[in-house]
Amino acid sequence: MELSHIEHLGIAVKSLEEAIPYYENILGLKCYAIEEVADQKVKTAFFKVGQTKIELLESTSPEGTIASFIEKRGEGIHHIAFAVKDGVQNALTEVEGKGVRLIDKAPRKGAEGLNIAFLHPKSTQGVLTELCENPNE
Amino acid sequence: MELSHIEHLGIAVKSLEEAIPYYENILGLKCYAIEEVADQKVKTAFFKVGQTKIELLESTSPEGTIASFIEKRGEGIHHIAFAVKDGVQNALTEVEGKGVRLIDKAPRKGAEGLNIAFLHPKSTQGVLTELCENPNE
Repeated sequence: MELSHIEHLGIAVKSLEEAIPYYENILGLKCYAIEEVADQKVKTAFFKVGQTKIELLESTSPEGTIASFIEKRGEGIHHIAFAVKDGVQNALTEVEGKGVRLIDKAPRKGAEGLNIAFLHPKSTQGVLTELCENPNE
Repeated sequence: MELSHIEHLGIAVKSLEEAIPYYENILGLKCYAIEEVADQKVKTAFFKVGQTKIELLESTSPEGTIASFIEKRGEGIHHIAFAVKDGVQNALTEVEGKGVRLIDKAPRKGAEGLNIAFLHPKSTQGVLTELCENPNE
């Protein structure tokens, strides 16, 4: 597997309305989009810094994974997403063959139309890890 | 304040010896240096992916901040470090004026000779945030 860059960081926040002013007024970044991803039960605000996006994640349901992450660990960095060079499916096949536990056995659609898949943090030294590719690039 | 990119991500691990093979053999990254930062009580392994370094942090003391982070929250992403364009001191002055709580009132030396300073996670939506600049660039 070859990684090209960190595509985004997912950061769990209680409230986009409270968090966005910090990223805009203190860090000087610009929120360029807000998108709801219904099947992940999140509303996401997007920023860009260099090659990498920052995705703030607010749960839209008390049963969502982001709500339960915040309940257990508080607000903070939730996952890291790497852009892979030769396709997410190839990467999944390769790492599963090396014994990595997968959350997604096959790529699915994530925010912004990316093909994505998550690896299980039990296999990734505690870091929830997403692999992704932009099908339009 | 203007950020140019994510300079690095700090990831807390129990053991570099156990974590490095995951980053090398599964993610396909190359550990290009290992450095001990005595005043932070850590041993650090460096990788690069795109513009961003990944710094694995192993505590060299049971009283270190990384040891206490792992005890409370388990292994995982510990902090995010942004490269600032106009110097760390200027950035600190600016954000302190906007009410941000600082861990470091003035820049100090971090790994790889960077000038660095930490902002307090109480002021940064739960994300321990480092600002840094390379004095040789």
